[in-house]
Amino acid sequence: MNAYTDLFSFVGANLQGSEIRRLFATSMQPDIISFAGGLPDPGSFPAQEVAEAVNKLLQQRGDLYLQYGPSSGTREGIDAAIHRMKNRSIHAEPAQIIMTSGSQQAIDIMTMIFIDPGDVILVEEPTFVGALGTFRNSQARIIGVPMDEQGIDITILKQTLQNAKQENHRVKFLYLIPNFQNPTGLTMSQERRVSVLQIAKEYDFMILEDDPYGELVFNGDLNSVRPLKAQDAEDRVIYTSSFSKIISPGIRLGWVLTAPHIIERFDMAKQMLDVCSNPLMQGLAWELCNSGFLDSHVTQLRRIYKSRADVMLAALQRYMPEGVSWTKPAGGFFIWLTLPRQINALEMLNTALAHNVAYVIGSAFSANSAGENTMRISFCHEQEEIIEKGVYRLAETIKDFISREG
Amino acid sequence: MNAYTDLFSFVGANLQGSEIRRLFATSMQPDIISFAGGLPDPGSFPAQEVAEAVNKLLQQRGDLYLQYGPSSGTREGIDAAIHRMKNRSIHAEPAQIIMTSGSQQAIDIMTMIFIDPGDVILVEEPTFVGALGTFRNSQARIIGVPMDEQGIDITILKQTLQNAKQENHRVKFLYLIPNFQNPTGLTMSQERRVSVLQIAKEYDFMILEDDPYGELVFNGDLNSVRPLKAQDAEDRVIYTSSFSKIISPGIRLGWVLTAPHIIERFDMAKQMLDVCSNPLMQGLAWELCNSGFLDSHVTQLRRIYKSRADVMLAALQRYMPEGVSWTKPAGGFFIWLTLPRQINALEMLNTALAHNVAYVIGSAFSANSAGENTMRISFCHEQEEIIEKGVYRLAETIKDFISREG
Repeated sequence: MNAYTDLFSFVGANLQGSEIRRLFATSMQPDIISFAGGLPDPGSFPAQEVAEAVNKLLQQRGDLYLQYGPSSGTREGIDAAIHRMKNRSIHAEPAQIIMTSGSQQAIDIMTMIFIDPGDVILVEEPTFVGALGTFRNSQARIIGVPMDEQGIDITILKQTLQNAKQENHRVKFLYLIPNFQNPTGLTMSQERRVSVLQIAKEYDFMILEDDPYGELVFNGDLNSVRPLKAQDAEDRVIYTSSFSKIISPGIRLGWVLTAPHIIERFDMAKQMLDVCSNPLMQGLAWELCNSGFLDSHVTQLRRIYKSRADVMLAALQRYMPEGVSWTKPAGGFFIWLTLPRQINALEMLNTALAHNVAYVIGSAFSANSAGENTMRISFCHEQEEIIEKGVYRLAETIKDFISREG
Repeated sequence: MNAYTDLFSFVGANLQGSEIRRLFATSMQPDIISFAGGLPDPGSFPAQEVAEAVNKLLQQRGDLYLQYGPSSGTREGIDAAIHRMKNRSIHAEPAQIIMTSGSQQAIDIMTMIFIDPGDVILVEEPTFVGALGTFRNSQARIIGVPMDEQGIDITILKQTLQNAKQENHRVKFLYLIPNFQNPTGLTMSQERRVSVLQIAKEYDFMILEDDPYGELVFNGDLNSVRPLKAQDAEDRVIYTSSFSKIISPGIRLGWVLTAPHIIERFDMAKQMLDVCSNPLMQGLAWELCNSGFLDSHVTQLRRIYKSRADVMLAALQRYMPEGVSWTKPAGGFFIWLTLPRQINALEMLNTALAHNVAYVIGSAFSANSAGENTMRISFCHEQEEIIEKGVYRLAETIKDFISREG
């Protein structure tokens, strides 16, 4: 049988599946406690409220909600985005917004609009694997800039920009997840945010600010997670967020905020990608915002995830052997674990699976396959008792692996 | 204010909005009867059945339907696609299918996987404007092959392939809408389908078969619209269809059927584009299939659209001046009108709007901006009385324009 692979394009021939997804498959066995997934807690999905809102909308105007909608989004979808951004100190106008099928689509369109093969994209090192996949597919040069507890390292960022300039490499944008970053759980300090905005102006590049977790700040202090976009006087920042972590990912609804003439480009691209996002899901998002439900729901989500993070942090403290360190997230879904330098998290994975626990290797999130002694563990998906037990198993794994390797 | 346009990619800088969409804007004034849109009849959307199914699914497993789903589709979505294809003489296995956010996304991924800049895509002349936009964006060479009443012209197709061969241009695929084509309403004869499959083998290219309207065959004879895919012994055909025209476009649900190793490529691309399609909408599609509702609904849709087509054809017969000819569709949404050669449909558009009627100029659907004396008129969206009145106005427009021009 002819496989027609000789007809593939360069991109088509070089597509790569996500390494994380392959590891997931092995971690889905029933006895395994998995800290691998980044899926929101399904127990917290507002199924009843979604059903009621959908029913109400369809009774009222089924003809509208089931029809094609505007490619930039329905008025309700856009109003829902504006509503959520108001909480985050961002004032937005409808013409500055396009609704997308999740922020993954926002990242994809951003890449399409700005990246020619060989252009530079700067990313935090490590960063979101879904963005890395899209960036790689565009044939961009991806350069990871390390982070510390305050976020991206400003000195190294400047050095990297100088180097790119000397080599005549065009830096198009910097991709940032400033709040409870995926995968590290780190939050960029407000001082760093201001510095990054200044540097973007100085070196003339855009910032793609990805903020899926911002509202899930454990202490509820939204000032501490104020986006770069809220201080973006010269429209350098293309801001994206979504309803995936505050309503549900299945509804596939995110948005982009930027200058209207760039929104127009997103709109033209969106028409070619999937015409429009589901108008019913956009109406739903607005219903849940407008009724006040979503604000109280977010408060509840903060409590759930904070409680799980607390349990995970306490268990790490209790069980982990010396030489292991970890981040202390102020929100979101993730903790980043650093093992003693000689331990390779990929090589340890089989031992972990034998102990019935799973994680994602840190190098999967690296722009340059670094971080072999790191891993991401998620507290978003499992119940508290399970988290406690899983961390115990993970600590036993590490001790076991150290004793065998040593 | 810096507009950052110097940071755009080649693709980003050259994106173009759809000409049709711009014309739509002018045709949306309340007094105008618009034959421009290709939107399904909103009165026929099964809002009640959708509400009931969604409610049932959310009661049962809200945790699943609101979560991320597999990027290739949920089992229910895939089963719904298999169910619809069975009606169309296609036997399909789950591993041969990926669910997409409408067939527009299928066209986009197909283009990503197969097209490098400069590659040739063959299309029917004229063809679907949404596909043309995606193809243009990929920097493909797009060559239109004329059609007659039996579909694509086989002699010209062969000539085109010979020419491409001589010029060392690589033909990657032929894009076809064999049933009630958008925009012409023409249906490719079964003989032509067989010929095209043979030619694809001979010249070694793929076929992208887009079949959104197939089930809307007025006389219910599904044998007459049997897809090329049903006779595709060597897996040359990548088949796409959707639920947009038989349930509703707003649910954004389509699919692709092809060999499993090509589905894998689609899957990897889909992960980067929007992760997955809405699992709740996939569950909904399966509910409506499995309950038997969709089969009877399609029967009803055939009646509605046939009746509207009949009214439009009768009115054309009654009102149109000599020198105007049109297609007689056996299903779908569209009729193609050819005006006397000296009439430019774009120049006539203002006259039409003054007569309170709108259409889409035929050249918008042309790979090479031909067909200036043609137009697409849709019978899908308006009620019968309105259709009758609109055709009258259109005929008056043409007479008016001829008398002024002549």
